[in-house]
Amino acid sequence: MKLVLIRHGESEWNQKNLFTGWTDVDLTEAGREEARSAGALLKKEGFDFDLCYTSYLKRAIHTLNLVLEQMDREWLPVVKSWQLNERHYGALQGLNKEETSRKYGEEQVHVWRRSFDVRPPLLAEDDERLPGRLVQYREVPAQELPRGESLKDTIARVIPYFEANVRAEMEKGRRVLLAAHGNSIRALVYYFEKCSGDEITKVNIPTGVPLVYTFDPNWKVTDKAYLGDPERIRAKIQSVANQGKAGAP
Amino acid sequence: MKLVLIRHGESEWNQKNLFTGWTDVDLTEAGREEARSAGALLKKEGFDFDLCYTSYLKRAIHTLNLVLEQMDREWLPVVKSWQLNERHYGALQGLNKEETSRKYGEEQVHVWRRSFDVRPPLLAEDDERLPGRLVQYREVPAQELPRGESLKDTIARVIPYFEANVRAEMEKGRRVLLAAHGNSIRALVYYFEKCSGDEITKVNIPTGVPLVYTFDPNWKVTDKAYLGDPERIRAKIQSVANQGKAGAP
Repeated sequence: MKLVLIRHGESEWNQKNLFTGWTDVDLTEAGREEARSAGALLKKEGFDFDLCYTSYLKRAIHTLNLVLEQMDREWLPVVKSWQLNERHYGALQGLNKEETSRKYGEEQVHVWRRSFDVRPPLLAEDDERLPGRLVQYREVPAQELPRGESLKDTIARVIPYFEANVRAEMEKGRRVLLAAHGNSIRALVYYFEKCSGDEITKVNIPTGVPLVYTFDPNWKVTDKAYLGDPERIRAKIQSVANQGKAGAP
Repeated sequence: MKLVLIRHGESEWNQKNLFTGWTDVDLTEAGREEARSAGALLKKEGFDFDLCYTSYLKRAIHTLNLVLEQMDREWLPVVKSWQLNERHYGALQGLNKEETSRKYGEEQVHVWRRSFDVRPPLLAEDDERLPGRLVQYREVPAQELPRGESLKDTIARVIPYFEANVRAEMEKGRRVLLAAHGNSIRALVYYFEKCSGDEITKVNIPTGVPLVYTFDPNWKVTDKAYLGDPERIRAKIQSVANQGKAGAP
């Protein structure tokens, strides 16, 4: 069994170095180009899929659309799920690194970004950005929706969704492509590789690079590989790690 | 209950006046612009949806994607179905009007285009374009796939699909947007309005214009309206009718 994961490319808020989370910003032209390159690469390497998954956020949906366009696979079924959204960054969403440090202190920001189970300040109950007030989530029971998440919280929504949906389809033999976000993909890496909380916070997922997992029938990872030029991928991982030091996800 | 139908905008083969059918050609920039205008109009008029349907053909899928982008509704579920594809034009696919007339005679071409139940010449059993040989239809039993269709044949695959899927969702209260093709939309018009075969061949569906049907609980049509400037819509319908006279769908 193989599973291909892809993190969306550069978004408008990556570029501005703002905490994004569930804010529904679009890809930049550079981000669209990352998606097209990934699609061309998957095609060149002979990959094919039966079923695709993505989040409710347009930066992941557009990434998937562009990959499918390059692969001439627009007709594949696509399942969109809010459970594959990025980690919800609570009241930090929309702030840049400088504002956040001024408001909360450098060290606190580092804790929020790099700890496994510490939540950011939650959205206030009257905040307009509360997911329960957004049209996207109108069919989701309000008590299931977050006001801000630790990475551990993100894992706690991604994994049950994966197990009940993607995993079941893969066990039927379906080849899956999943386009999502830095932290929802981390959640899957944590689950597949049985990481510790400490280990997973040090994993950096490069943007726009197909990550191919191969499993044996007992879901043991038998291979893990990024597709593409190793030098370029290393540079991308380093850039994500640096962004982590300097600013926003 | 309301249902919004939209026929894709200009494709690369509309522009060249070729019989298209199931050939998977893309929109032209003019076609993309038609889709964006339709999306902007639906948003301006306050439309919203719970569920979308489209075909396996990229000119309809891209139309839907562009409409959803304009409406900020990328996250809506989309079901893709080959049963909503354009009428299959058999061995006429890829020919232009002149070639076709030279090969089969002017009158015969008119019969194929404008009759209700006459099939075009079918694809040969060894034709590479046979749907059963195309990767898109690999999960569909070969005997369900056409080698060429009359409008009556198209109706015979669209309506059972509609009844088993779209109709059921609408009866649960879900608001549906369906992006498809001239003849798959004609099939629905025939069904909703209880047309005769003769009547339906005279109906011309304008490209890129939302067509809004309203039904009572017994599926009687209580209203039918195209959205947008009536003068522009009339011109579009006339242009489709003329295209019918001169060439290809």
